[in-house]
Parts: sequence; structure tokens; C-alpha cells
Amino acid sequence: MINVGIVGGTGYTGVELLRLLLQHPQVHIQAVTSRGEAGTRIADMFPNLRGHIELAFSEPAIDKLVQCDVVFFATPNGTAMQSAPELLNAGVKVIDLAADFRLQDVTEWRKWYNMEHTCPELLAEAVYGLPELHRTAIAKARLIACPGCYPTAVLLGLLPLLEAGLVDCQQLIADAKSGVSGAGRKASVPMLMGEAGESFKAYNVLGHRHWPEICGQLSNISKTSVGFTFVPHLVPMIRGIHATLYATLVNTEVNLQEVFAQRYQNEPFVDILPPGSHPETRNVRGVNRCQIAVHRPFNGKQVVVLSVIDNLVKGAAGQAVQNLNILFGLPETTGLQGIGLLP
Amino acid sequence: MINVGIVGGTGYTGVELLRLLLQHPQVHIQAVTSRGEAGTRIADMFPNLRGHIELAFSEPAIDKLVQCDVVFFATPNGTAMQSAPELLNAGVKVIDLAADFRLQDVTEWRKWYNMEHTCPELLAEAVYGLPELHRTAIAKARLIACPGCYPTAVLLGLLPLLEAGLVDCQQLIADAKSGVSGAGRKASVPMLMGEAGESFKAYNVLGHRHWPEICGQLSNISKTSVGFTFVPHLVPMIRGIHATLYATLVNTEVNLQEVFAQRYQNEPFVDILPPGSHPETRNVRGVNRCQIAVHRPFNGKQVVVLSVIDNLVKGAAGQAVQNLNILFGLPETTGLQGIGLLP
Amino acid sequence: MINVGIVGGTGYTGVELLRLLLQHPQVHIQAVTSRGEAGTRIADMFPNLRGHIELAFSEPAIDKLVQCDVVFFATPNGTAMQSAPELLNAGVKVIDLAADFRLQDVTEWRKWYNMEHTCPELLAEAVYGLPELHRTAIAKARLIACPGCYPTAVLLGLLPLLEAGLVDCQQLIADAKSGVSGAGRKASVPMLMGEAGESFKAYNVLGHRHWPEICGQLSNISKTSVGFTFVPHLVPMIRGIHATLYATLVNTEVNLQEVFAQRYQNEPFVDILPPGSHPETRNVRGVNRCQIAVHRPFNGKQVVVLSVIDNLVKGAAGQAVQNLNILFGLPETTGLQGIGLLP
Amino acid sequence: MINVGIVGGTGYTGVELLRLLLQHPQVHIQAVTSRGEAGTRIADMFPNLRGHIELAFSEPAIDKLVQCDVVFFATPNGTAMQSAPELLNAGVKVIDLAADFRLQDVTEWRKWYNMEHTCPELLAEAVYGLPELHRTAIAKARLIACPGCYPTAVLLGLLPLLEAGLVDCQQLIADAKSGVSGAGRKASVPMLMGEAGESFKAYNVLGHRHWPEICGQLSNISKTSVGFTFVPHLVPMIRGIHATLYATLVNTEVNLQEVFAQRYQNEPFVDILPPGSHPETRNVRGVNRCQIAVHRPFNGKQVVVLSVIDNLVKGAAGQAVQNLNILFGLPETTGLQGIGLLP
Repeated sequence: MINVGIVGGTGYTGVELLRLLLQHPQVHIQAVTSRGEAGTRIADMFPNLRGHIELAFSEPAIDKLVQCDVVFFATPNGTAMQSAPELLNAGVKVIDLAADFRLQDVTEWRKWYNMEHTCPELLAEAVYGLPELHRTAIAKARLIACPGCYPTAVLLGLLPLLEAGLVDCQQLIADAKSGVSGAGRKASVPMLMGEAGESFKAYNVLGHRHWPEICGQLSNISKTSVGFTFVPHLVPMIRGIHATLYATLVNTEVNLQEVFAQRYQNEPFVDILPPGSHPETRNVRGVNRCQIAVHRPFNGKQVVVLSVIDNLVKGAAGQAVQNLNILFGLPETTGLQGIGLLP
Repeated sequence: MINVGIVGGTGYTGVELLRLLLQHPQVHIQAVTSRGEAGTRIADMFPNLRGHIELAFSEPAIDKLVQCDVVFFATPNGTAMQSAPELLNAGVKVIDLAADFRLQDVTEWRKWYNMEHTCPELLAEAVYGLPELHRTAIAKARLIACPGCYPTAVLLGLLPLLEAGLVDCQQLIADAKSGVSGAGRKASVPMLMGEAGESFKAYNVLGHRHWPEICGQLSNISKTSVGFTFVPHLVPMIRGIHATLYATLVNTEVNLQEVFAQRYQNEPFVDILPPGSHPETRNVRGVNRCQIAVHRPFNGKQVVVLSVIDNLVKGAAGQAVQNLNILFGLPETTGLQGIGLLP
Repeated sequence: MINVGIVGGTGYTGVELLRLLLQHPQVHIQAVTSRGEAGTRIADMFPNLRGHIELAFSEPAIDKLVQCDVVFFATPNGTAMQSAPELLNAGVKVIDLAADFRLQDVTEWRKWYNMEHTCPELLAEAVYGLPELHRTAIAKARLIACPGCYPTAVLLGLLPLLEAGLVDCQQLIADAKSGVSGAGRKASVPMLMGEAGESFKAYNVLGHRHWPEICGQLSNISKTSVGFTFVPHLVPMIRGIHATLYATLVNTEVNLQEVFAQRYQNEPFVDILPPGSHPETRNVRGVNRCQIAVHRPFNGKQVVVLSVIDNLVKGAAGQAVQNLNILFGLPETTGLQGIGLLP
Repeated sequence: MINVGIVGGTGYTGVELLRLLLQHPQVHIQAVTSRGEAGTRIADMFPNLRGHIELAFSEPAIDKLVQCDVVFFATPNGTAMQSAPELLNAGVKVIDLAADFRLQDVTEWRKWYNMEHTCPELLAEAVYGLPELHRTAIAKARLIACPGCYPTAVLLGLLPLLEAGLVDCQQLIADAKSGVSGAGRKASVPMLMGEAGESFKAYNVLGHRHWPEICGQLSNISKTSVGFTFVPHLVPMIRGIHATLYATLVNTEVNLQEVFAQRYQNEPFVDILPPGSHPETRNVRGVNRCQIAVHRPFNGKQVVVLSVIDNLVKGAAGQAVQNLNILFGLPETTGLQGIGLLP
């Protein structure tokens, strides 16, 4: 059994991580910490977990965490970097679901996250935990930066096009839509149901933190700087991301369906839909799966890729567990074989 | 392995039954029939099942179904009774998720369902599949009538009070609220999102088919005729039933919390919440569980019981699987140990 | 023109009051105050008001408010009582949309609202602003306490039964359901869309602040103390209240439909639906109207009344405007003749 | 008073048209026809209209309609063309809210709408009823083709860029999102709340009927053929369209905010938001307004325009009334001065 610690289990990625790890056959949850809720039984806060976990939240004490084999951080940005060095020194693996280690350039990080990074020396070592792109490195990593939810949906949708050099890298557009759970479980007026319900809007059009993260990976893939426009939107639903991706073909002699099918033929968590499909976010509700459809309207030069994930699973907690499996040499699908809850 | 046939797999109880049975370690799904969709791959209709099932819907042919150990009917009312006699004669167990065998009085049945019953002789034999009430009979049954969704939530909430003779049986009220999936997956104007969304209403106040079903069971339990008022409501959400139950105490010297806790102490799928709790339907989303809280405002004579289930699971497909487990001597929780999807 | 001041225009009742008053032909809005948002243009905070109002929020300065003919308080509980005495002394009418003057007993008030009342001497003078019950007193009042949203829906539904002495006053039940806007526009975890969406729950079963308010009015009407059970629930929608009311007939020789129709025949804002109807909250979305249907299942002793309002209109801002009209001798429907937004 | 007939008042655009016309000071509604519902009181079908209209639906009889000054068609596609010639011959103006006269090329129309056009000779005469583009022609028209909902949101957002020649016409993208009421009020499985709720998807990526309509108008504006990609999506809400528009600047020396502000400075129903804004669909709920924000991320060549309307108002019934006002020489805002219902 792998001894697991979770720092910050009171948010949506935290409770989702608990749901997945409690059903994982190789995991023992040793501690779930929360500064604010120490002493509260976890199942009192999240009654869906009643009967599945007896633990209470505990104070985030490093001496307890160093006894774990791996520690997940399901915390606000800027928390994992406080404890990561000590844990790594103690030989504990670290999987961060937040943004502390997602960018490699510390200046860039500081600019987008408005704080100083406390362990910039680890940025280069941290592996970006998108298994479909960095599986080999993940297997050998000590420190994994789980991708953001938008980046996961966007990157998986654009990967095959960029790797095959099929599109103009200067004209990439991601029009992305997310359910409200992406904003986390903290009190805020804009995320009240009275505000976010029965309405639709774009936000952060002039700059979203996931933009540099996506750009960085796209550049790595295409081995060139990219022109990338990213417009996130808020959907009045709880779970799910739908990314609609636009690119211009430079090579029109290609069977796009084939390209996608081949790229992901061995990927257990990427599902390429038949030609003409329109993935719905509900198809992947609660599961670690990305469903993708690729379209070429009127056989023109414009490619339209539709990519859906559950932002809390393949976009966060599920991907973290997938990384855990790789890290500890387990079959990658261990504990992740559930079926999406439809309807 | 238990060979299972499913008649009518295109509705919401059908796809939910598939989701559960596909994750059940002792079940092999032999056939899923649908007159309208014969030939269509199941996973094409329900893309959440992609990679989990390769079958296509087949014509409902009795010669194929008799090769099963058990056949589930996830069909409209009036369908199971057409084939049940033949299946039973062939030694196949039948679990009906619809209403064909829920009432024992054929006159009553005809009145509420507006059709002739084609095998009234089976009504007496059929066992009402609420394990918490009829477990022993279920274990020996050939034909099981799974309870309706409202009856499950209402009966589990009132059972302890009636069995212990604590309340006035002439003054029982169930104010019940259901998500829209309870109405099934058939085209209808009132269930359009444009009609049912962002609104709340009662319906069938002057008479709902679940009223005689609940009344019958309540009378059996209390061994007297009951006065029972039932008002169902439609909630703008997909899954979940919340029953708010009102009864008048005839014995006020009792610890209600104790009564409920003891009644259900060995029930794996009924979870009595601590005093002062308010169960939310999301706590049990996707799982075979009923969460109950019992209140006595101002320590008066009025009891208020709050009871929540997922109408498609403990209110339909999950309960059907629970019955299957009992019927075949498996641990009752086999294949039903998932954790509720929250948020 | 009536010069109007609004204290606290940043919440949902505030913006709704603005929407109604801006379309009221006899009203001039002189000031809208907000301590937190002073200086912000109102239409910047609420873009639906762009082009309809040029004012910015101003500091709540009493010297400015005393120049108004009437001041509305759309504030948290405990605010109106701070300024009401001074405004009344200056000859300004006060209409409070919060709870400061809804109860007549100061001890009771202190108990339910957890604070000292700063002007208990005004409690006796304040008129409970339910026009269908207190129209004459309202016309002569200086200080009006607008009813809570639940009390409005419940009282209008029970009034005819109690006034006519048709039901047992010891057995009254209100099972009430509200959209999330009833909780206001303040940051809180339970009202996040991620928490309140796609779920249904009861809350405050052991005691809600609207209970003593309703009890008090019911007792006044029936001229006896009442036994009243009140269970509020949260519906995953934004606007609307649906009250399902249960009472036991003591006189069964009566035509309930007639009783309701006659009681409200001259009321412009209460609409009795035909027999067998089920009002939907969307019918009254955005308008000052209560729709009621009365049922007697199986012609038994149990009456079931269904009553719907828009909690922000007939349950708050619209009712406040109705009171304004009465107070200033205008036709009661002035500015309140809109049509419900369906769908 | 203008005598108005409405053909097909049982759908969402029909009931919305009724809501608007019943509040229009210069309109008298003479007849509302419905083949299926003839004899039903309109307010029985739409209880929000109780007290506002006493009419029942009548049979669609041409002799009655020719007595009107103007007839609106709020019917399925293919209906208006059956009666338009006769009405026009009788001197009655026709405003079609459906698609019968939106395209000028009959071959194109036949291809997209899968039926023969019965009066192709009227296609050239029909005026495309987008007042911001064709106001002068509308004023003189006999037959008006109201734009589709998507085209309204898209065209108003792209107009200023194309008219000023600022963008590459070969690279236009509209990523559009609509609430479910856009699909109308007819029974269908995909529009059930159980299907469309809590999920998000694109549809018709390979070709939507609004594509040729938008292309045609874009070409007229830019006086060249355009390259236009259109991806519609379904949002789990009832009302509202949000179009996110992407174009590539060919002239970067321009103040886009200025361009938009000037283009629409005299338009009563187009509201250009301040720089950095993100319009929400709820801002315009229930009103005849388009709110637009224009962005240029990182001051690059990519323009992002955000455009929102209520699909049933500025996207259908409200725009129809705006056309009526122009047609009959009334102030254009007559009857259209309501305030958006927020929240």
C-alpha cells in the first residue's frame, strides 16, 4: 500500500481526490490536513464520504507528512511551494494540483501569480504531469506539477496537430468553457448561484493564468513560439470543461481523424470519437477521460477540435491519481476505471 | 457469473442499470434489447459507456432472454407483464423496475395504470423489492417488483415510526420533490429544459400512481389502513429525490434518533444522519443510499423526517441490483460500493 | 413625483427595487446609498441598468435622506432600526424590506435576530406591510415592515382558510421551497453554485426566523394561538418561492375554490387558479403576483394549498412598491403591471 | 392602434411576442392562431398572461388575418411562405420570425431547409430585418424577414469591423453559445432537461442553417466573399446567446473601442460596454438589447468581440417589434423600454 498524505482537503479538488483515492486499491490515506478545519471529521464536511473514511482533518504538520510515500497538495496557489523542499528532502514524492510548479520561468510565474516563488530552484526539476505528453519523465520524477484544467483540455486537443506539423502555430485559438467548480469552493460573490446561474459570460479575456502555461507547452511541442488566443467562459453547470479549438491547416492532404486516432491509440484516458461527433461534458462526468472530436467544416482549411473533460477529474484529481500510478509503477488505470455518470 | 438480460435499455433507468452492472464483478450482460434501437451500438447512444460495452441493442426475442439467469425490465409500464410469465416458466428470474407488479390488487392497478393487466395471477407472488422491508421474501422470490422512486424515499423515512407505533397513522404527509430524470427519457414538452428549468411546481396533487403503492405498504407495516397525503413536486435538477415527511407523535416519550438508528443499524444502504442534519440530494448522487434525518421542531408532537435518495439508483437501478445480489446469494453490497459524486 | 431614497442598493432586493422604481411613473430616485460601494456607478455594478440610471452609490448620509419623501431600506437586518427614528422624526416615511420591524415582541425579536433592538418603541407603530391583510393601516402608516418572502407566500395561502374558520389551527404545515436569491447577494460557501446547484435540501428545520413572523400573523388572523410547522427548502434556481400548505378541515361542507376566489376577488396581485391547477414559480417571474391553487385530494379532510410568488418581487421589492403606492394614495398597481417572464 | 395578428402563438417566440405586444401602447392584438390549440384560452396555456389577455387561440383563417394591419409569423419554418403572398396582396404587412425569407438564393434555401420554397419570387423583395443594418429599407418594406438569433448576435458584433475594413474577411470565426429556448417548445429528447441540463456541447459543427444567413450578410457588408467558421453550442440555461467572435486585424493603428462606440452611438438597442468588460447574458434577460465588448489581447492582431442578446427578444420577438415600430413610423423604442431581469 502507498501511504498518502493530502494537504488541503476542503476544496473541490480535495474532496474529489478523496473520492478517488478511497476507491483506489493500492492507497492508504494517512492524513488529510486543513489549517481551518483541523479536528472536523472529513465525512461531517462531505457527507458523501460517510462510511468511507473515519479520519478527521489534521493540522498540516510536516513531521506527519514526511512519513508518507507521497503528498498531494490540493491547496490554493502558493502553498505547496512552502513545504515541497522539505518533503522532497525527506524522500517524499510531491504531486501538486495547484500552480506552484507549472511554469518553468520564475519571472513569468511571479507576474501571473502575484507573489514571490519560495523555491524557484525546483521549477526546472518539476515535471509537468500530463502523462500523454511526459509519461517517461513522470515515472522518474520526485515533484509533479499537475496541469490546470483548461490546459489539459486544450493541450490534448491540439497535441496531434502540432506534433504532426499540420497547422499554422501563429493562429491557434482556444475558446474554452468551464463549469463553476473550476473556481473552487471558497466564498465569493461572482460564484454565487444567484450570479453564475442561468447566465453565460467570458472572463479574463485580456489574460488568464492558464495562458502562459498552455503557451509554454505548445511551444515545447511545436518547437517554436506560438500565437495563441485563449478565451475562457463560465457555464452555469457544476462540472465539465469544453474546449473548442481553432487552427488553420498548412497541410490539407491529411486525414485528421486518422492522425488523432493514431496519436492516442494507446492512451487509456483519451477517447477519439467517430467523425461527425459532438462530445458532451456529461459523457465524462466523474471520470478520468478526455473525449475529442475533430471537424473540418466544408473541407476547408479551418480545423475545429472539440475536447471535453471533467475539470475535477482529468483536469485535476483524476490526473493526479494517474500520475501517482505512473510514479509508483502501477497499471495506469488503477482506481480510475469508473464509468461517467450520465445523466 | 450471472447471465443478465436487460429489456429496454434506452431510458434513464436502463443506462444507469448498465453503468452499475458493467462494474458488477459477478455479472455478465448477455443482451440488452430495444425494439426501437435494435442494431444501434449501446455506446453510440450513451457515450459514457464507450470502452465499457461492445454490445448493440438487440430485438427483444424471448428465446434469447430465456438463456439468461435473470432479466431486468427497464421498460415503460405494461411491458414486463407481457413476457414475465414465459420467462418465469423457463426458470428465469424477473426483476421489474417498472410498475407492473407493484400493486397486489388488480382492480386498483387497472384504475391507476389505465390498462388491463395481462397476468394478474402473478401479482400475489411478486415480491415488493424493498430489501429493508422484505429481504427474506426477496431471497426466495422468482419475480421482484422494484419499488417506485418516491415510495422508496417515503417508506424508508416512515418505516421506523410506523413499526414502532409512534405516530398517528391517519395523519401522514409526504411532501416529495424529484429531479426531472424521474420522468424518464421520452420526448415531452413539460420535461423540456425550457419548461422545467428555473421553475418549481407541484403536480398530480389530486392523485399520483405512487400513492396507492405507498399506502399499501404503509398499511402492511402499520397493520391498519392509513390516512396518507402525497404531494409530488418537480425540481429543476436531474437526479435526486427529497421527501419531507410529516407525522404526529402519539408517544412523545421516545428518542426518535435512537429509533431510527436502531432500525437501520444493519442496513448497508440506509444512513441515519446525526441530530440536526439536513441531507442534500447531492450526497447520494450516483449511489445506492438513502440518507435520513429526523427532526422534532420545538420538541412538539410533529415529527419531520427528511429522506434523500438518487431516484435512478436507490430509487431504481441500484435497488434492482441490490435485489439481484440478495436473489443470488451475493453480499448485498456487491457492485454497489461507489461513493456519491459531490459536487 | 415622489422623492425616493434607497439605503443599501447592492443586494438582490436592492437591484430589483431599482428595476421597479425606475419604471414607476411617479417616482424620482434621489439617492441610493451603500457604505461599501460609495462612488461606484450603479449601472457599473448592475449592467442591466445601463441607460436607465446615471446615479452612483452615495455614502449613507442622514441629511441627504431626510430630503426624501420616503426611504426604502434594502439592507441586512439591524440596519433600518439605526436610522428609522431620525427619518420618521423628520417626517420621512420608512419602508423596511428587512426584518427590523416585523415582530412586535422585542424579546422575541432579540432571540431570533441575535441582537439588541435599538428602537423597540417603534415596533408597536410599525405596520406589517401585507396589503391583502393590512391595507387600511398601511395607508396611514409612517413605518412599514415589509413581510419576509416565505411569510408572504404562506400567509396569502392560509388566510382564507383561517379567516373563515375552516381548518384546525393546531395542525398547520408549510413546506416551503425557495430559489437561492432568497439568501441574498453576499459571499458564502453554501450559496455557491457548486454547492447549491443540482441539489435539493431542507434547512433550519429546527427554527427559521420566518416562523415567529408567520405564527404571529396567523394568530392575529385566527384570534388564537396556532400550531404551525415550517420547513424551508433550497431549490436550485434563482427566483421563486413555492409554498405547499397543509391543513385539516373542520368544516367539510364548503366549496374551497369559492372561498379563495371570493377572498381575493378584489386583490390585483393575488390570482386564484382554476380547480386542479398547479402553479409554477416561473408564471410569476419578475412580477408582483401570488398565484394560488387549492386542492382537496380524494375529497378528504386534508386541504393542500399551492402558493407561488417571486421572492424578490411580491416577496420583497414589488410588495414594497405596492406599499408605496398605498402610502401615497396612488392606484395600487402603478408601476407594477409587468408580465411574468416565461420561459 | 395597429391591428395585429399572430400566427402560431404556442412556441417560445410566440409567447414572448405576446408578452411584448400586450405591453405595447399602440398595438391591438386581433387574433392569435394555432392549428393545434384552437379554442384553448391563451392564458390557460401560458399562465403568466392571466389577466392580460382574454383571447383564445383561433384557427388560422386567412379571411380573419387579412383584416389586420400586420401579421407576425411565430411559426416553424415553411409556414409563413404559405400565406405571405395572399396577405401581401391584401395589403397586410408581414413580419416573419422564422427563416422563410432570410436567404435570397432559393437554391441555397432549399438546400438548407430541405423543402421547396412556395414563393421564391418574394425572396428578393423581403427585407432582412436587422434595423442596425437595413433601417431605411425596413421602413418601406411589405415583408420583413427577422434575422435568426445567432445571426443577430454575430452580425452586430462583426459589423463595425467589416464596415471599416479593419479585419481579414477570410478568417472570421464565431464561437456561439445559446440557451435551450433557442430550440423552441416542441417535444424532443435532446432538449429534455435530463439531456441538456448540467452539460455543455457543440452541435452542427459541420453546418448550421444560420451559417449561410450570416455569410450572406457578411458578404454584403464587406462587399466580398468571406471565410466564416461558425460553431454553435448549447448552454444549460433557458435564455441568452453569447457570441465570441474572432478576427485578425489588417489595420492595427485603430482604436477599436472608438470604432464600436461611433458605429452604434445612435442605436437605442446596441450597448457598447467600457474597455475590459465581459457582458453576461443575464444583463439583457427579457429585453431588446445587444451588449458588446471588444478586446484585443496583448495588443496583438487578434480581435475578440463578445456579444450578448436574449435570443427570444433581440434575437426574435423584440426585434420583430422593433421592426413593427419602424414599419409604422413609431418611435423605435415604443414598448421596448423594459429593464433586464437580473438576477
